Amino acid sequence: MEVKKIFLPESELPRKWYNIAADMPTPMEPPLHPGTGQPCGPEDLAPIFPMPLIEQEVSQERWIDIPDEVMAKYQIWRPSPLYRAYSLEKFLDTPAKIYFKNEGVSPAGSHKPNTAIAQAYYNKISGTKRITTETGAGQWGSALSFCCALFGLECKVYMVKVSYQQKPYRRIMMETWCGSCVPSPSTETNAGRTILEQNPDSPGSLGIAISEAVEAAVGDEDTKYSLGSVLNHVMLHQTVIGLEAQKQMEIAGDYPDVIIGCAGGGSNFAGLALPFVRDKINGKDIDIIGVEPTSCPTMTKGSFSYDFGDTVQMTPLLPMHTLGHTFVPEGIHAGGLRYHGMAPVVSQLLLDNLFRPVAIPQLETFQAGITFARSEGYISAPETDHAVAATIREALKAKEEGKEKTILFNWSGHGLVDMAAYEAYLSGKLADHELAEDEIERALADIAPLPKPQQYKG
Amino acid sequence: MEVKKIFLPESELPRKWYNIAADMPTPMEPPLHPGTGQPCGPEDLAPIFPMPLIEQEVSQERWIDIPDEVMAKYQIWRPSPLYRAYSLEKFLDTPAKIYFKNEGVSPAGSHKPNTAIAQAYYNKISGTKRITTETGAGQWGSALSFCCALFGLECKVYMVKVSYQQKPYRRIMMETWCGSCVPSPSTETNAGRTILEQNPDSPGSLGIAISEAVEAAVGDEDTKYSLGSVLNHVMLHQTVIGLEAQKQMEIAGDYPDVIIGCAGGGSNFAGLALPFVRDKINGKDIDIIGVEPTSCPTMTKGSFSYDFGDTVQMTPLLPMHTLGHTFVPEGIHAGGLRYHGMAPVVSQLLLDNLFRPVAIPQLETFQAGITFARSEGYISAPETDHAVAATIREALKAKEEGKEKTILFNWSGHGLVDMAAYEAYLSGKLADHELAEDEIERALADIAPLPKPQQYKG
Repeated sequence: MEVKKIFLPESELPRKWYNIAADMPTPMEPPLHPGTGQPCGPEDLAPIFPMPLIEQEVSQERWIDIPDEVMAKYQIWRPSPLYRAYSLEKFLDTPAKIYFKNEGVSPAGSHKPNTAIAQAYYNKISGTKRITTETGAGQWGSALSFCCALFGLECKVYMVKVSYQQKPYRRIMMETWCGSCVPSPSTETNAGRTILEQNPDSPGSLGIAISEAVEAAVGDEDTKYSLGSVLNHVMLHQTVIGLEAQKQMEIAGDYPDVIIGCAGGGSNFAGLALPFVRDKINGKDIDIIGVEPTSCPTMTKGSFSYDFGDTVQMTPLLPMHTLGHTFVPEGIHAGGLRYHGMAPVVSQLLLDNLFRPVAIPQLETFQAGITFARSEGYISAPETDHAVAATIREALKAKEEGKEKTILFNWSGHGLVDMAAYEAYLSGKLADHELAEDEIERALADIAPLPKPQQYKG
Repeated sequence: MEVKKIFLPESELPRKWYNIAADMPTPMEPPLHPGTGQPCGPEDLAPIFPMPLIEQEVSQERWIDIPDEVMAKYQIWRPSPLYRAYSLEKFLDTPAKIYFKNEGVSPAGSHKPNTAIAQAYYNKISGTKRITTETGAGQWGSALSFCCALFGLECKVYMVKVSYQQKPYRRIMMETWCGSCVPSPSTETNAGRTILEQNPDSPGSLGIAISEAVEAAVGDEDTKYSLGSVLNHVMLHQTVIGLEAQKQMEIAGDYPDVIIGCAGGGSNFAGLALPFVRDKINGKDIDIIGVEPTSCPTMTKGSFSYDFGDTVQMTPLLPMHTLGHTFVPEGIHAGGLRYHGMAPVVSQLLLDNLFRPVAIPQLETFQAGITFARSEGYISAPETDHAVAATIREALKAKEEGKEKTILFNWSGHGLVDMAAYEAYLSGKLADHELAEDEIERALADIAPLPKPQQYKG
C-alpha cells in the first residue's frame, strides 16, 4: 500500500511565519505616498491597517511568531495534507513524481484563510470593529467573512460586479458567515459613484473595488481595510503552506526539483514557494515557476514600475510588475488571477531571477483541470487549474526527456463554487485571449509618468 | 495546544467492512419479487446488479474484505478526520464534548463516494460498461459520476427535475467527471413518459427517478443500476465511517454516550452508527439517534411494511418504514432526505429499539447550520444540518441537566453546492412543514394491499 496523503499532526504546525525580506539578495523598494511621492511611514498606513500588520509589512526579521489564537484557528483545517498524484502520473505516463499541497480543505475552500485569520486576529486585538475589503472571483471575500465570523468582527465586501452576478454562491457564503457583500462599483462610495457616472454599465474590476473598500475604511476610525494578496504581510502569512510542505516532503523522503504555483496578486504562489526560494538562495537547484493567464500577463508582459494598487489612485505606490492601474481584464476569462499588479516581493524575486514566470491560455488550463478531476478526483478552482496545467507541461517534458523529476505544486483551492466556469468550458463557450502588443502599450501608458524604482530594468 | 483533529494514517484504514446482518437480534425479512410476491433469489436481481453486490446484499458474514483496488481509491480522501467541536461547545456553553466525523473531505463533498467507489469497482470487474442511477439533491449522482470516472465507466443519472433546475452546479460536477445527467421524469423511458402524460409539470421524485434508472438498466446487458442508499450492501460499505471513528475515539481517549446521524434512505446514519450498534448489542450503553425532517417523517410516522422502492413498482418489495411509494414530498424542503422509505437494516434496528428516531423541522436545522458555520467554520449540507440540530439539542439538554456527555455525530457533507438553500433560509423564504395525519393516511393507503412482514408491529 503506497502512501498517498502525508498528514502532519497539529503539533507540527509551524509556530513561526517565514519573512523572506531577511534573505532577499536585493532589498525591496519602499512604497511611496500617493500624494507626496515620498516613502510611506507607518503613520501613512495607520488609517488603513492596524499597527501589528504595518509592523509586519516592513519587518526585516526572518521569523515571526504565529500567535496562539491564530494557531488555534489554523487547527480548523491545518496542517493541510500533501498528496502524491499517482493517478495523474499514471495517466500522463510520466517518470515525474507529482506532489500537491491541498489547500482546498479550509472551510472557504482555498488558501485565502491563511492570511484572513491572521488579519482578523490582529484587527481584533487592535480594537477594529469592522473590516472592509474587495473580492474578484469571491475566494477572498468569503475567506475574510469566515475569519471575521470567528473573531466577531463585521465584514463588508465590495465584489467585482460581473462576478457578483455570475457567482451568487460566493455571496451567500459570505452572508452565511455574517459578511455583507455589495456589487462594485457601488453607489456607497465616491469612487464607485465616479466610475458609475462615467460608465453606468461598468463590469467593475479589482482596482475599482479596492478603491471603494479603502475609501470606506479611511472614513471611519472603527473600520480598517484588508487586502487578500500583494502586500508583504499577506505573503508572510501564506508561508505556512511552504513550511508545512517542507516537513511533508521530508517525511516522503523527497525534495522538489520543480515548484509550481498560480499567481494573480502572488499570495498562493509565494506561500508555497518562499521557503523553497530560501533554499535556492542558499544553493539548492530548484526550478520555481509562477503561472499567470495569457489574458492578464502581469509578470511576462507587464512593466516593473511604481504603480497604484487601485484604479482611482488612493493606495500607496508599490514597486511591482504591473499592466497599469487602469487595466480592465477581458470578461472572457472565467477564473480569477486578473489583478493588474504583482506582489512587490514576487516582483523583486522575478527581477533577481529566483523564479520564472509562465503564461498559459485559459482553454489549456480548463483542459488540465478536467484531466485532474478525472484522474485524481478533485475539481480545482479555475485559478488552480493554471498550476495544474503548468504541472502537466513539466511532467510531459520529463517524459520527453526521459528524466525522473519531482514536481510539487500548490493546489490552492477547489472549484465547487465555480462550476459555471466549467460549464462554459465544457459547452465550448470559452475562448483564449492574448493581449496584443498595442493593448499592452496602451495599458502601460498610464503608469509612465510615475516614478521608476531604482532597480527598474524595463 | 488542544488537539482538534484526529487523523488516522492510511495504514489504519479499515481492511474490512462490517456487516451487521451477522449480529442483528432479529433477522431481516427478505425482499419479495414484485410480480410473484415470493422472496427474491439472486437470479431475480441479476439484471439489475452485478453478482458480487448481490452476494453482499444477502451475506451473513460479519466481516467482508475491502478489495485492494477500492482501498487505493479510498486513499484519495480516507481516513477522514475526526474533529472536536470546541468552538461550538463554547458557544453553547455546554458540558458536553462534541465530536464530528468530517465526511465532507471527499472530492464530491459527502460520504456518498464510500459506496460509489465500491459499486463502481464491482461493476467494473463484472464487465459492466455503463451504470444508471437516480439522484435527488445531487450528492449521489455526483459521487457516482466521480467514481465511474476513476474506473472508466459510463454513468447516466436521472435527477429529480425540481433539483435539476435548482442545482445546476451538481449537474456540472457530474459532467466534469464524464457523467451524463437528465431531468426526471424524462422522455427517455416508459416510466418517465407515463408520468409526464399524467402530469407534464411533474416536479419529479426519487421514486420516479429510480423507476427510470432501473428501466434503463434492465433493457441493456452492458448496463447495471446503482442505488446510493437503502440497500444492505450500501449500508455495509458506509461502515468504514464508524470503524474509523471507533479507532479515532480511542485515540482521543473517549467513547460516545450519544451517536447522531441524519437519515434519508439511511446510509450515512448507518455508516457511522452500525459499528456502535454492535457495541450496544454487546452491552454498551449508547443513545443512538437517527434524525429525519418533519416534512418526510418516514421513521417517526411511517408504517413498517413491504413496499416498493420506486413509484411505478418495478423494484422488489422491501420490508421497511415507509410513507408509501407514491409519496411526493413538499417542494418547500430545501435539503435532501426526502425518500419515502428507510433502509431495511435501519428499519429492523428501529423495531428492535436499538436506536431512536427524531424528526426536526427545517427552520431549526438551518439555524443549527448557521450556528455551526459561525463557530466551527464549515458550512454543512442541508441534510447534515439535521444532525447538527439534533446535536445542539442534546448538548443543551446536557447543559440543563448539568451532565458531562460525549456526543459524536456524522458531518456527512459540506453545503458549498447547496448555497441556494441557505439563501432561501437567510432571506426568510423557507417555512416549516409538518405532515397532517390525513396526509399520512392518504400516503400510506397505497401500500395497504401489499403483504405485511411477519414482524409487522404497526
